[in-house]
Amino acid sequence: MNRKMVFYTTGHILILEAILFMLPLLCSVIYSETSSVIAFAISAGIALGVGLIMSALSYTKNKLIFAKEGFAIVALAWLAVSAVGALPFVIGKFIPSYVDAFFETVSGFTTTGATILSGTQIEAMSKGMLFWRSFTHWIGGMGVLVFLMAILPTDSGRSIHIMRAEVPGPIVGKIVPKIRETAKILYLIYIGLTVIMVGFLLAGKMPLYDSLVHAFGTAGTGGFGIKADSVASYSPYLQWVITAFMLIFGINFNLYFLILIGKFTSAIKSRELWCFGGIVAVSIGAIAINISSIGYSISETIRHSAFQVASIISTSGFATVDMNAWPGFSKTVLLILMFIGSCAGSTAGGLKISRVMLLFKTVKADLRKMLRPRSVNVVKLEGKTVDDATIHSTSVYLITYFIIFLALILIVSIDGFDMETTLSSVTSCLNNVGPAFGKASASFSVFSDFSTLILSFAMLIGRLEIFPILLALSPATWRKK
Amino acid sequence: MNRKMVFYTTGHILILEAILFMLPLLCSVIYSETSSVIAFAISAGIALGVGLIMSALSYTKNKLIFAKEGFAIVALAWLAVSAVGALPFVIGKFIPSYVDAFFETVSGFTTTGATILSGTQIEAMSKGMLFWRSFTHWIGGMGVLVFLMAILPTDSGRSIHIMRAEVPGPIVGKIVPKIRETAKILYLIYIGLTVIMVGFLLAGKMPLYDSLVHAFGTAGTGGFGIKADSVASYSPYLQWVITAFMLIFGINFNLYFLILIGKFTSAIKSRELWCFGGIVAVSIGAIAINISSIGYSISETIRHSAFQVASIISTSGFATVDMNAWPGFSKTVLLILMFIGSCAGSTAGGLKISRVMLLFKTVKADLRKMLRPRSVNVVKLEGKTVDDATIHSTSVYLITYFIIFLALILIVSIDGFDMETTLSSVTSCLNNVGPAFGKASASFSVFSDFSTLILSFAMLIGRLEIFPILLALSPATWRKK
Repeated sequence: MNRKMVFYTTGHILILEAILFMLPLLCSVIYSETSSVIAFAISAGIALGVGLIMSALSYTKNKLIFAKEGFAIVALAWLAVSAVGALPFVIGKFIPSYVDAFFETVSGFTTTGATILSGTQIEAMSKGMLFWRSFTHWIGGMGVLVFLMAILPTDSGRSIHIMRAEVPGPIVGKIVPKIRETAKILYLIYIGLTVIMVGFLLAGKMPLYDSLVHAFGTAGTGGFGIKADSVASYSPYLQWVITAFMLIFGINFNLYFLILIGKFTSAIKSRELWCFGGIVAVSIGAIAINISSIGYSISETIRHSAFQVASIISTSGFATVDMNAWPGFSKTVLLILMFIGSCAGSTAGGLKISRVMLLFKTVKADLRKMLRPRSVNVVKLEGKTVDDATIHSTSVYLITYFIIFLALILIVSIDGFDMETTLSSVTSCLNNVGPAFGKASASFSVFSDFSTLILSFAMLIGRLEIFPILLALSPATWRKK
Repeated sequence: MNRKMVFYTTGHILILEAILFMLPLLCSVIYSETSSVIAFAISAGIALGVGLIMSALSYTKNKLIFAKEGFAIVALAWLAVSAVGALPFVIGKFIPSYVDAFFETVSGFTTTGATILSGTQIEAMSKGMLFWRSFTHWIGGMGVLVFLMAILPTDSGRSIHIMRAEVPGPIVGKIVPKIRETAKILYLIYIGLTVIMVGFLLAGKMPLYDSLVHAFGTAGTGGFGIKADSVASYSPYLQWVITAFMLIFGINFNLYFLILIGKFTSAIKSRELWCFGGIVAVSIGAIAINISSIGYSISETIRHSAFQVASIISTSGFATVDMNAWPGFSKTVLLILMFIGSCAGSTAGGLKISRVMLLFKTVKADLRKMLRPRSVNVVKLEGKTVDDATIHSTSVYLITYFIIFLALILIVSIDGFDMETTLSSVTSCLNNVGPAFGKASASFSVFSDFSTLILSFAMLIGRLEIFPILLALSPATWRKK
């Protein structure tokens, strides 16, 4: 285990965070929010100090890393940015409890969007704080370390291991042979789409500040809003823009790259894209029928179903209505969408469409094999044969996911809430969605400090796809040889 | 597909059911329940008639069957015995709706024990009907077709395929080389243990009729009782006897065979047994602590925790208290125990301990492999290396199970109940447990006819471990060549 390299990289991440703090600081300067300016300045100082010390103390010439170090770096870096990212909220006295602030920041970086704040508390926050809160979504969406790779010369050997550990999905493809170039391209597409979205929001007369913040939350598929009623008070046009962009950010970014280099037909042929579209369409239809008796007009019915489906399947979590008041069937559909999530290689959470497709195809191949034991059954994804190792690791992923899910449910149930509350909160956090049903539908502040930490842990597990966190918790990972 | 052999065997099963009807008929004769006697006589006549016609029409000299036929026979036979087994309830006018009677009978044969009857309705039933209701547990526990194999000369080639499809667990071991002998030994152990249990119950002054009926329900790990409060009104001694035997019937019957042939030390070394014991002990402890504030005495706390844990993990479903009133944590523990179930090769449902062990070990081996990619990681169960094919099929089993579980939740949620009701009902039926929480805690009669059928289907899926039912629903299975 190259421990020095793990701490060295984490130190760099903190230095990066110190720089990133300058944006909300600037925002607070513009809106003359003195206490917030101070809070960001102190936090940046701490991040810079700790980061510099960590990097200096663990400087090493041996920059070679393997899968193990990749997992450890990602786990530690995410913990560190969350721990430090929570400071402004506490120092600025907007969230007095550090545990709550940590939850809120983890929720931000993991693009979950679950909040311990009440609607009134959200609206009472400074512009700078709300900017930072949503900006964590944007940073976490594409990945903290991918960002580092994109801006720094790749001096760490084999940084593919970091990328594999941070970018979600069963198979991580480099777009171009060089990691650094891949990271850059991904971030350029990400920035480009975010800018386009801001343009569409401005065109609908949303103020610039609101547009930026909502674009951050949508791009990262996070879901933190700035109003008590999420985005319910914005115009239908703006809600439709957000609906469209939540889905756009749920699509594999490789497809945008294919479109950029002119391979439009290859992009449009993606089976994952079609499957994603199919699930979205069917879910919108099913929910629209189910909620038709509530009393919305036809256009409202379609808009609200589309918005909520896009919001949940993209694991964003914005809302135009109180989903908790919807009938059981609609809530169950949304709960299942939380598990599915969007495409691999997007900023969304959940199991990912391609993984779900692979699992279904594996089951289908096995059933066929039972009927005709001597037949040859190959599982194909996007026209390519999937090897047994990938099928195995995808199955094991689901099993591990399921075990962790049950363990989380068990621990959180100690708080004694009803099953709907416990189950939907864990599902929402583990899949980085945001909203929950039952007693947690307004805010996650109902949970004990212990459960709040467990749910923070669930969000990290979900965002980093289990193994980095699990392995970082195992002493064997940290052994010197 | 040897379709004739499928219908031929199903016909035999119905003839067998006609004979089995004689026992409750006799019971009703003893208690002079004329209308019940008539109901059983008519039902037996129908079973015999249909069975004889089916067997005669599909007589074939080609008795060779493969896995495919094994699945089809098991699926069709279970559907047939349930469809016909429901007749006495309807003819005797104890359950007017055929859908409800079908649910109740499927619940009996699959040893689920979920009921659509209210406490008052149960106590208003004739002794013969209650006898039949519990007797279906006893028949279904060890398997309808295994029974047929035990009593008839094995004229069907390769009946191991039927056994594999009917006996639960990831790996079906023949105790002795001959299938028929294996089936006989299993049934003799089953009868022996049932008789011993009746002795213990009689010793606690339970009336003979009550003892027989409760022994049937316990042996099959079913859970149908004869009183509105399940077994709450029986003495603590009797409740402890039932607790012990629920666990005894949750243990792999191969271990009893090992003990019978003098290999006591091999039996006691079983890792599955120790794991089962460990889960039971930890769950009892956790629940005892959690319910300690309710106001039971210490002995009651231990008795009720032990009883409910044994009842749920063995997937029986008897109760000494109203579990629905317990705190959220205890209910969550019980819900998770529903998924786990007991040992493979027992009469219990759920995923089975050995399967859960195998899944955990697979995850562990994979995590180790991630840390040290070049290490060799062998998964062992009971000291034997498990091959990749078994690991693969066990993983796929869990995935299929999970997909079906979500699909069932989705369909049943159309009824619009809260998540606790829907989730616990589906979990309970799919794992053949019986009791549910929320609005279904008293009776399953709250569900619509459609959901009642879906839940019946869930019980069959659970008892036959998914694939027989799935494959029987696929047209490809029934194709001639």
